[in-house]
Amino acid sequence: MSAPQRFGRVLIANRGEIALRIQRACRQLGLETVAVYSEADAQSRHVLEADIALCIGPASAARSYLDAASIILAAKVTGATAIHPGYGFLSENADFAEAVEKAGITFIGPTPDSIRLMGDKITAKQTMQASGVPCVPGSDGPLPEDENAILDLANSVGFPVIVKASGGGGGRGMRVVWSADELIKAVALTRKEAQQAFGNPTLYLERFMQKPRHIEIQVLCDTHGTALWLGARDCSLQRRHQKVLEEAPPPGIPSELIAEIGARCAQACRNIEYRGAGTFEFLYEDGIFAFIEMNTRLQVEHPITEETTGIDIVCAQIEIAQGKPLMIAQNAVQTSGHAIECRINAEDPFTFAPSPGQISQWNLPGGAGIRIDTHIVAGSVVQPYYDSLIAKVIARGATREEAIQRLKVALSEMQVETIATNIPLHQALLCDRDFLKGGVDIHHLEHWLEKRENPDDKASVSADI
Amino acid sequence: MSAPQRFGRVLIANRGEIALRIQRACRQLGLETVAVYSEADAQSRHVLEADIALCIGPASAARSYLDAASIILAAKVTGATAIHPGYGFLSENADFAEAVEKAGITFIGPTPDSIRLMGDKITAKQTMQASGVPCVPGSDGPLPEDENAILDLANSVGFPVIVKASGGGGGRGMRVVWSADELIKAVALTRKEAQQAFGNPTLYLERFMQKPRHIEIQVLCDTHGTALWLGARDCSLQRRHQKVLEEAPPPGIPSELIAEIGARCAQACRNIEYRGAGTFEFLYEDGIFAFIEMNTRLQVEHPITEETTGIDIVCAQIEIAQGKPLMIAQNAVQTSGHAIECRINAEDPFTFAPSPGQISQWNLPGGAGIRIDTHIVAGSVVQPYYDSLIAKVIARGATREEAIQRLKVALSEMQVETIATNIPLHQALLCDRDFLKGGVDIHHLEHWLEKRENPDDKASVSADI
Repeated sequence: MSAPQRFGRVLIANRGEIALRIQRACRQLGLETVAVYSEADAQSRHVLEADIALCIGPASAARSYLDAASIILAAKVTGATAIHPGYGFLSENADFAEAVEKAGITFIGPTPDSIRLMGDKITAKQTMQASGVPCVPGSDGPLPEDENAILDLANSVGFPVIVKASGGGGGRGMRVVWSADELIKAVALTRKEAQQAFGNPTLYLERFMQKPRHIEIQVLCDTHGTALWLGARDCSLQRRHQKVLEEAPPPGIPSELIAEIGARCAQACRNIEYRGAGTFEFLYEDGIFAFIEMNTRLQVEHPITEETTGIDIVCAQIEIAQGKPLMIAQNAVQTSGHAIECRINAEDPFTFAPSPGQISQWNLPGGAGIRIDTHIVAGSVVQPYYDSLIAKVIARGATREEAIQRLKVALSEMQVETIATNIPLHQALLCDRDFLKGGVDIHHLEHWLEKRENPDDKASVSADI
Repeated sequence: MSAPQRFGRVLIANRGEIALRIQRACRQLGLETVAVYSEADAQSRHVLEADIALCIGPASAARSYLDAASIILAAKVTGATAIHPGYGFLSENADFAEAVEKAGITFIGPTPDSIRLMGDKITAKQTMQASGVPCVPGSDGPLPEDENAILDLANSVGFPVIVKASGGGGGRGMRVVWSADELIKAVALTRKEAQQAFGNPTLYLERFMQKPRHIEIQVLCDTHGTALWLGARDCSLQRRHQKVLEEAPPPGIPSELIAEIGARCAQACRNIEYRGAGTFEFLYEDGIFAFIEMNTRLQVEHPITEETTGIDIVCAQIEIAQGKPLMIAQNAVQTSGHAIECRINAEDPFTFAPSPGQISQWNLPGGAGIRIDTHIVAGSVVQPYYDSLIAKVIARGATREEAIQRLKVALSEMQVETIATNIPLHQALLCDRDFLKGGVDIHHLEHWLEKRENPDDKASVSADI
């Protein structure tokens, strides 16, 4: 616990909508902002609107937004006393966080130790289990080498199981095994891939939940012992592990159950002395929550939590990093209404082919309950080098139905020329009967897309995760 | 009380941002929209986005948006079963409301009788007084002809008094009298003006409140006996009786007092069987509320009530007109946080000279807590024929401070080329020490503008209201 300080200038080590989101929070707190940018982003809004902007390299992210040394140098040169990493890029890189702090600059995020702890999926799960956070039944540690021991373990967990690389994540390095006779071969294959992809052959095994939903709990922790949970988000609408549309609260899950899981997450944060914002990701099926991983950073979908709790998560991150205590108690955190976020991407709505280029027309929706987070203005160029997110359209309503109606109207008002966007996909999803019912599982979108492509093939379902 | 019906198509008898606001509400409720427009507005967004659009006359409002017969004909021709009048234009014209209903079309608003009752300032005040709504001490009816009777009345009320035309409103037809020796002459002058301006020489007299704030209470009443009050708004920042910036709740007024006044307003609505949305306007000074008038229509500043209560007032208006009961009880109406609206006008920020023309660049702010209501897109033309409102920028925050900070950042992000707007005026006001303290009176803005023009003339204050 350090004495409260006040940053003069904050460097934002990111681009796109999240760089602007963080700039807004800094301005609201009266702090100057430093933008760093690649040559491709010289005309981007996060560059033009920053108090100071420094080019740190060519378009390639590896040589710009992922170049830790250049970013730290930029902070020193500009006199920035803190760095906000945003999401993606270096936001969950413990070595970067450590290098920032070694340079005498505040990292707006958790400690390097926390990032490391949660970066290793096995230790993360063991830590959470020890704190009372429910986890999927599984190997409770690295998979043994002995084939019989592996078989005994899988039988005791129950098939189907999923074999995962401890160093993996984001859907890579994992394999579903449906019966005992496939197991040994699958383990060997996954181990080989894990070694190749992550330089770490360590595996673990879990019961495979077949039709789970993706539910996550937002936490916010200061350096004075307060850890809050801010409700849950349902992010089950995914394609290839990329979230497409998120909502809060998750439809159909009893709020008492969410409160119980939330309290356990907050307790786990206190146990590991977690600092800043973070997200506990769970699979949820048949009333059971099973921890999968913790994201030690701000998330793309944080606005839906802001809209339902009224808490500004990014301002809170900055104030926590300044050493301020959270000024709200858990029982004062109240969620009300419903919020849904559509990620608007520059891509074909159904083939998902990227659609970079200049945007000639850009008319945004507005009105009651509509929030827009974007870095685009008319004339902006969507670069091919980075992710394709061009805007987040967020609708809030007193009820889920009102939020959906507002979102439909908002998307119908949005005019984007002359690149393709996934707005038509969102519009179709918002009319999908299963989505309207609420509570679709994480495979729903991919099945829905397959059915759309092969309308006659009624048996067509994805067997893979 | 009529049986619930469902409109198929709603004609919106208005233009600009409010026409779009109403279109959005219709779409959310699954209703088609009919736009009417003047020749000058042929390319306006409310025309382009409507399901059906009909030109009803030339640019002059008198021959288009005020032409009751053409509007009713347009509704018949297009099969619209209801008309929403918005604000301004025909929205408080009882004859129009009556003609609409006689044509078999639903008027989305109060009954013609309610509009008439509240349109006459003397009967409005008498009605409210009888219902327990606090009013300014005064003549409690038309001023007598007899000079001695007038003098006795003014002496019993106490000087200064204000003499007002019963048919007046919006700041016209009124005169402040500071002492008994000016009174008779002032009454004669005002009577003459009232006869000329409103065709009605009837006057009344009230105690003149010298430094009041303008506080108003939003009400919403269905046709099943439910009348709700939805919190209060502070609209004291005015110039020439035009509101510039509004906020909810009013800073520094005890919520118990507002609740007491709100309950009296709701009771008055039940007493007169009021229907739809309405606003009770009060002067407020030294802890005293004094009713001045009731607006029997939607108001420009309705979004700040929506932002603090979560209730969609326009959707509610439409549903009430369809005969649906309000689905919320008074004790479930909760206000939370703070909301502020800046009216962005196409005008010079300090001379207030109108600034019509084409808008070449139009970049809107966004992010947490920011709501934009506008009909403008890049390329839109601001017409010289109508009011100069081009957008409402509304900020919501957990606290007044947060709302102000968000608003400041939002205004700094807003880019409008190449017409002048009053954004610099709002930016200056948001830094004004008296405004930041909260609770400025209705003369504050005019004094502030005078001081700005004559910084050395410290005695310069406006003696007029």
